[in-house]
Amino acid sequence: MIKTPVQLRFHDMDMLGHMYNGQYTHIFDIGKSDFIQTALKTDFDWHDGIGFVNVSTTNNYYSQIKFGTNIEIQTTAEKIGTKSLTLLHKMVDVNSGEVKADSLCVLVCFDFRNQKSIAIPNPWREAVEKEISLK
Amino acid sequence: MIKTPVQLRFHDMDMLGHMYNGQYTHIFDIGKSDFIQTALKTDFDWHDGIGFVNVSTTNNYYSQIKFGTNIEIQTTAEKIGTKSLTLLHKMVDVNSGEVKADSLCVLVCFDFRNQKSIAIPNPWREAVEKEISLK
Amino acid sequence: MIKTPVQLRFHDMDMLGHMYNGQYTHIFDIGKSDFIQTALKTDFDWHDGIGFVNVSTTNNYYSQIKFGTNIEIQTTAEKIGTKSLTLLHKMVDVNSGEVKADSLCVLVCFDFRNQKSIAIPNPWREAVEKEISLK
Amino acid sequence: MIKTPVQLRFHDMDMLGHMYNGQYTHIFDIGKSDFIQTALKTDFDWHDGIGFVNVSTTNNYYSQIKFGTNIEIQTTAEKIGTKSLTLLHKMVDVNSGEVKADSLCVLVCFDFRNQKSIAIPNPWREAVEKEISLK
Repeated sequence: MIKTPVQLRFHDMDMLGHMYNGQYTHIFDIGKSDFIQTALKTDFDWHDGIGFVNVSTTNNYYSQIKFGTNIEIQTTAEKIGTKSLTLLHKMVDVNSGEVKADSLCVLVCFDFRNQKSIAIPNPWREAVEKEISLK
Repeated sequence: MIKTPVQLRFHDMDMLGHMYNGQYTHIFDIGKSDFIQTALKTDFDWHDGIGFVNVSTTNNYYSQIKFGTNIEIQTTAEKIGTKSLTLLHKMVDVNSGEVKADSLCVLVCFDFRNQKSIAIPNPWREAVEKEISLK
Repeated sequence: MIKTPVQLRFHDMDMLGHMYNGQYTHIFDIGKSDFIQTALKTDFDWHDGIGFVNVSTTNNYYSQIKFGTNIEIQTTAEKIGTKSLTLLHKMVDVNSGEVKADSLCVLVCFDFRNQKSIAIPNPWREAVEKEISLK
Repeated sequence: MIKTPVQLRFHDMDMLGHMYNGQYTHIFDIGKSDFIQTALKTDFDWHDGIGFVNVSTTNNYYSQIKFGTNIEIQTTAEKIGTKSLTLLHKMVDVNSGEVKADSLCVLVCFDFRNQKSIAIPNPWREAVEKEISLK
């Protein structure tokens, strides 16, 4: 599991005074960025033209989040297929331990030059399998 | 079905040159705002302190969206319970008719003053039932 | 002058119930995108690797904007130099004609491949000079 | 001077691979939030209905910012009037010390209930004067 502290921004909140539903995916993505950099040891320039694209996201919102809450994202790798990878992100109130929301994401490995999905390269596969075994 | 044209913004796109996954919910929400104003004939000030909160969102992304694509959101009411309402949003390329992404959202009626879920008021229930029958 | 209608989004507003100060530049940018596409007849892929970058922005906020206000951006070209271009955007309440905010932006022509500022190409210069004469 | 570390997000960047000009104000605002909480020892619920609104922002962008840059905002109070307060935010590359951008903001004290500007309350005035003397 990879734990990523989150710096909330004033504008993550909306007119109702709680986190805007559209911002949840932005904030889960802070965990996804960290997972990709930390576990896969790669970066977002996808300099070889190979990376991941999201194919689905399922978010559950359990409890409102106010500005000032101390939040972290806890990311685990759940499953790996030939071309796809499933991550689970939990948005956790660090002080209480409460899971405020979670997000199940399916990513597909993508060749941006040829614009098609491809098999996950072996070094990334091994890194993900290690994360799955550790979760 | 309620059709809502979308004005894409430059920053809906990301470093990879396509719509950022986090922006999809922002853009589906343009359809949700329109549904709430058009079908429910209410506004977002929730002046009686009663409104809707999202409890879950399931987004599927079928095909990349580039800046300049002519997009609309097509929203249908799928289901209504005592307290909850399920909407389906489709993000459609107006020129080709292709569904680029969709989003199934469960909303719960909420009393912001007392901070608890409540039964959907009758006028809203009737409006949603009418939308369900029309879809 | 180029007039660009704006589709406001729920999340352009903040916890105080009015447009978030950080969103103003996002929304002025809708006018800037339109100016670049309409007056300069170019696009944002900057396929030749030549485009504009912002070097400064001066925004004045005269009056709060609420969700539901009918807004347009009115863009005029104010000045052109060898490498730079100054645009003025006004955020106008279409119903009342009131200028709610304005933004003076200095853009510099930039060669993204060689990562340096360059002289504005002649076709763009002529298009901007035409806009200056029309303002 | 108040120094605020910034957690950059993937989507602070745009299609050109650098920080989107519209995001600068969002990020300077992280410094502004910190200043208000740290120096003024108040919060954003503005529970007495008294707070600050932005009346102008002047941003200068000196050098592009890439994803992964270690950024902090350095905020100083520059000036205080009866009703207004001027802050200067610098966006600094922590590793090199380079000032990548800065922002001069004029804020006005505002009574949200009566919707009018008011004199800055004494405890806030004293806190700001202390910050001005320390800058």
